[in-house]
Amino acid sequence: MKSEPTVFLFFPFLLRLKLESTNLPILIHYTMRTSIRQYSSRPVEDDLLNELLAQAEQTQTMGNLQLYSVVVTRSDEMKQKLAPAHFNQPMVTGAPVVLTFCADYHRTTAWAQHRKGHPGYDNFLSYQNAATDALLFCQRFCDLAEAAGLGLCFLGTTVYQPAAIIRLLQLPQLVMPVATITLGWPAEHPNPSDRLPLSAIRHDETYQPVTAETIDRDYAAKEALPENLEFVRINQTETLAQIFTDIRYTAKDCQTLSTGLLEALRMQGFLD
Amino acid sequence: MKSEPTVFLFFPFLLRLKLESTNLPILIHYTMRTSIRQYSSRPVEDDLLNELLAQAEQTQTMGNLQLYSVVVTRSDEMKQKLAPAHFNQPMVTGAPVVLTFCADYHRTTAWAQHRKGHPGYDNFLSYQNAATDALLFCQRFCDLAEAAGLGLCFLGTTVYQPAAIIRLLQLPQLVMPVATITLGWPAEHPNPSDRLPLSAIRHDETYQPVTAETIDRDYAAKEALPENLEFVRINQTETLAQIFTDIRYTAKDCQTLSTGLLEALRMQGFLD
Repeated sequence: MKSEPTVFLFFPFLLRLKLESTNLPILIHYTMRTSIRQYSSRPVEDDLLNELLAQAEQTQTMGNLQLYSVVVTRSDEMKQKLAPAHFNQPMVTGAPVVLTFCADYHRTTAWAQHRKGHPGYDNFLSYQNAATDALLFCQRFCDLAEAAGLGLCFLGTTVYQPAAIIRLLQLPQLVMPVATITLGWPAEHPNPSDRLPLSAIRHDETYQPVTAETIDRDYAAKEALPENLEFVRINQTETLAQIFTDIRYTAKDCQTLSTGLLEALRMQGFLD
Repeated sequence: MKSEPTVFLFFPFLLRLKLESTNLPILIHYTMRTSIRQYSSRPVEDDLLNELLAQAEQTQTMGNLQLYSVVVTRSDEMKQKLAPAHFNQPMVTGAPVVLTFCADYHRTTAWAQHRKGHPGYDNFLSYQNAATDALLFCQRFCDLAEAAGLGLCFLGTTVYQPAAIIRLLQLPQLVMPVATITLGWPAEHPNPSDRLPLSAIRHDETYQPVTAETIDRDYAAKEALPENLEFVRINQTETLAQIFTDIRYTAKDCQTLSTGLLEALRMQGFLD
């Protein structure tokens, strides 16, 4: 990482060699990434989508079982129907493609049943394993898509009203939506959003206590950013943290949505 | 994706331009990835680790809250202690670095408490959100680390005996381990493992039924691979699927481990 950037030929057969030594350009690209919510009218070709999905399959997966699936939404009608489940965020109808990544033990269970196996994946551990597989696959897909120049936005709303998504996408037992991506060619180039210093998230050997001192050390710069000061002003709170705890992700909402999420897991067969 | 590979200068200030058009070399690299379980004696420098972690922070995260943390294990003593929680897989003591990625609402809750907020994240939705953040961050880190030439192996065992890991790493309330990575410079170059055809995992508009026909279509090639035929022979089963359902991930084991996982979530404050 410390080597100076150098001009080098980036040709497939040279790639392995180069990647073994320094890889600064790729890292620099990653640093620049940010969520994209505005898309151009340029279509996302199905060949490209297939290539990205197929390459993303190479990511790590439990026992090589690939406990995930992805539902591709291109039709305007389905986007319109999906939008309310995502609180009508405009990216759902505005993006050429919407991808719903699902934890999926249904296909693997069906495979085993047709091959004289005795599958028993109607439990919470199996949900955790499949959700993990689906999220790793999703992030890998995002990394590849962004590397190809596409822009995307991750919708956390997927697990807020999962029952509606399950119904619309006709997800069978042992399939649970865990992530949604809106995808297209960027029509905006926003600045990357701020992140905490590494001291906030890295712990050596054991988890280090979070104290008033470490909070000031790790959050002061974030709280002092002009855009966050403005964010506080608009939301009429005293502190930045209050926007999240008292307005956006309140205890009451989290409790209510938790109940719905657990019900959906039960409905899909992942909880007794 | 269809363009021919071309020689181009891969210089940082040219990068954005190039990435907007075609990005074949990066994609080719990704195709080659596979898990690495044998590491050379070359150390993983802390500067490199920090740079990779810091760059991985740029990935998507809920409300820009970064609901994750990572515990870095370098000491032999801690690796020895962690190993049994991972069923003594040799990578844990054999790798220069072990990283435990955690869903973390503890730090954000402490921040809010010190800033006059009213956090309420002791519920399952909050676990789901934080686990998602942690897994996306983990996969992003893996992509960056592999692009830098490092090798790694994802240990699914993290959620099998989480209580032991929680105790050893001294994880406080609202912190839950969700993924472990062993990391080092590769001392082996195994072939990538097989993957299902895209037809197995891609669904258009709605989830398409899984039938005897689609299973044959999607699993026949996998079942016919010499290494999988050998895998069946060694395990003395009739089918490949039976290895997973009847030997490796049995219903009985999944049930038992589910109970432990839910208990750990309750202990960490994510379930009532």
